[in-house]
Amino acid sequence: VKESSLNITSVELGEHRHYMHKEIFEQPQAVVDTLEGRLTQDQVLVSSFGPLAESIFNRLDRIHIIACGTSYHAGLVARYWAEDIIGLPCQVEVASEFRYRNPVIENNTLFVTISQSGETADTLAALQQIKAIRQHGKRQERRLDNISTLSICNVAESSLTREADLVFLTHAGPEIGVASTKAFTTQLVALALMLTSIGKVQNRVDSERERLISQGLQKLPNLIQQALINEAEIQEIARDFADKQHALFLGRGTMYPIALEGALKLKEISYIHAEAYPAGELKHGPLALIDESMPVIAIAPLDDLLEKLKSNLQEVKARGGQMIVFEDEHSDLSSEPSFKVVKATSNVGRITAPITYNILLQLLSYHVALIKGTDVDQPRNLAKSVTVE
Amino acid sequence: VKESSLNITSVELGEHRHYMHKEIFEQPQAVVDTLEGRLTQDQVLVSSFGPLAESIFNRLDRIHIIACGTSYHAGLVARYWAEDIIGLPCQVEVASEFRYRNPVIENNTLFVTISQSGETADTLAALQQIKAIRQHGKRQERRLDNISTLSICNVAESSLTREADLVFLTHAGPEIGVASTKAFTTQLVALALMLTSIGKVQNRVDSERERLISQGLQKLPNLIQQALINEAEIQEIARDFADKQHALFLGRGTMYPIALEGALKLKEISYIHAEAYPAGELKHGPLALIDESMPVIAIAPLDDLLEKLKSNLQEVKARGGQMIVFEDEHSDLSSEPSFKVVKATSNVGRITAPITYNILLQLLSYHVALIKGTDVDQPRNLAKSVTVE
Repeated sequence: VKESSLNITSVELGEHRHYMHKEIFEQPQAVVDTLEGRLTQDQVLVSSFGPLAESIFNRLDRIHIIACGTSYHAGLVARYWAEDIIGLPCQVEVASEFRYRNPVIENNTLFVTISQSGETADTLAALQQIKAIRQHGKRQERRLDNISTLSICNVAESSLTREADLVFLTHAGPEIGVASTKAFTTQLVALALMLTSIGKVQNRVDSERERLISQGLQKLPNLIQQALINEAEIQEIARDFADKQHALFLGRGTMYPIALEGALKLKEISYIHAEAYPAGELKHGPLALIDESMPVIAIAPLDDLLEKLKSNLQEVKARGGQMIVFEDEHSDLSSEPSFKVVKATSNVGRITAPITYNILLQLLSYHVALIKGTDVDQPRNLAKSVTVE
Repeated sequence: VKESSLNITSVELGEHRHYMHKEIFEQPQAVVDTLEGRLTQDQVLVSSFGPLAESIFNRLDRIHIIACGTSYHAGLVARYWAEDIIGLPCQVEVASEFRYRNPVIENNTLFVTISQSGETADTLAALQQIKAIRQHGKRQERRLDNISTLSICNVAESSLTREADLVFLTHAGPEIGVASTKAFTTQLVALALMLTSIGKVQNRVDSERERLISQGLQKLPNLIQQALINEAEIQEIARDFADKQHALFLGRGTMYPIALEGALKLKEISYIHAEAYPAGELKHGPLALIDESMPVIAIAPLDDLLEKLKSNLQEVKARGGQMIVFEDEHSDLSSEPSFKVVKATSNVGRITAPITYNILLQLLSYHVALIKGTDVDQPRNLAKSVTVE
């Protein structure tokens, strides 16, 4: 049996050396499949989240996202979107902390649990805990008669999908590589659809905004395709990491969680100690680490924060740090002779930008791992689903 | 003039080789001074936060803490206390992210800004932004007629103290070392007093709980003194870091932000790439990094999470990681032959525990820096106050 399943999986690899590579390149299709039936030309279909979605979305005052690892990073991106675009308070939390810290549970909250497998132990336990509090109350708090739960998973009939009031399945297809790529991308698509749906039901998103978001999401497969074209250039940059043990990822706004995800990917598959910081925190400590042995990877979209980021990068450069920048074609950091710059996007929007930049970081971590000679699909010490604490 | 000020400061160093060392050992007194006049035997004095404190504390529904670097870590500890002990929703955010992300501002929120110098640029800008929103409103949101601000600073007459409705001065005395030690400790004391005061005004803390917290805080100088006794043992452990470039700090609950602070301290003054994780996230990525070149520092108080933490540490051990554990005398991790264990506390409480364990991590980073031969008080690339973005 084992042999035959191996044969099947090796067939499935096709032209790709690793599942991770295959899954990175499947992302345009994964987004198409995840949008299918959830979006018309100009509108999100609220019912994609189930028949109860409209009434649940209508009654909520705040969103609390709970997840682990890569799914947690997807939640962090969504927080920026929720408060900026929809105007709804949103917090995001690591499941293993939430479930043990005795959190305040507020009425009118939608709890969103995210897990590729739908079986992540801490996330599942957090969801069960929320349901128990809904049923039995907690302390002397006001009655919690309006708590709802929504799970975003890639596996149908998984534990998280069975436990939640509302379910959204990402249609990324099976993800074999331990380091999540297409699941993360489709989680972000799911969160964008969820927030737009909530915004629409609550009149926080008008039809013009809804149209722009819908069209942006439909452009996403093409934007990802364009990002993937940069592979050869990124492969070349990856060679700089051959003798490196460290890396620092910097971003601001939604690019901060993308920096976290880029660092996690590099950690997971290349065993390089990569860490991410919001760029504004650089001066509060991590700048002490910067020298020629610490490459710094920055994400520089064309947005209001670009000038701030540029000044952060000048500080890194002044300390001898080696800079690698992923930027918009108009971000114009390539004028710095010592920076390695990948011009990878052109005027992407607030929702499509983090998804698109993340693709570039996936390619970087993949090619660094190849150079390091690690086992890309089965990195040491890690399992695909963390089903125990 | 320069010469004469140099003379004065060298006199002030006394028996200590560095200001950081002096300031670590000043902490029992800094806590005494910060509690002075703010606490009677069994009660917190709400008026320590100003004559308006009682009415402001009475009207608030949630707390939003904004800070940078070490002060941000103090805020993270307070979040656990606020929700667990007082039952009030609390969030904490890096100032450079808050000010640029278009956050939702909710009515009945107390915004707490924390900065040793009171001049941190991003924190000050965040406070000014909140005040502008209070005055002029934002979007079409409901009127924000009940937003209040409170600054916790170590420098009187600083910008943050001038801008806030309520002010609490930590009486840590001048902090010269760039890496903050006694300011952080007294910020935690300030936050504990603030939360207890709010809880008292809102009847969320009864007089028995208030008495226990007050007595716990009064025991703190002695607990810190006892923690400092471990210096020789920690100095010995620091020798293991002589050839190390990496470190991973693990904690759960309030010990997670303490792990973050321990990692930041090591980064700042020894240039070792130290990173912190909530222990439950280990399996979601960072475990791939673990080998003999990555020492793992764990904080293991005697609490409900000890068994969970122990199982995390077994995983680290199984991957060849070198473990250093700071534990309660009853935590009983010393039975592991391969672990280096410092038994440093005995049955500390929920508020005193993180403050006490942090002292041990300060000593560790100080002695590692001595071994590395770095400039402890003036680490490369860093300034004491970050007064520009």
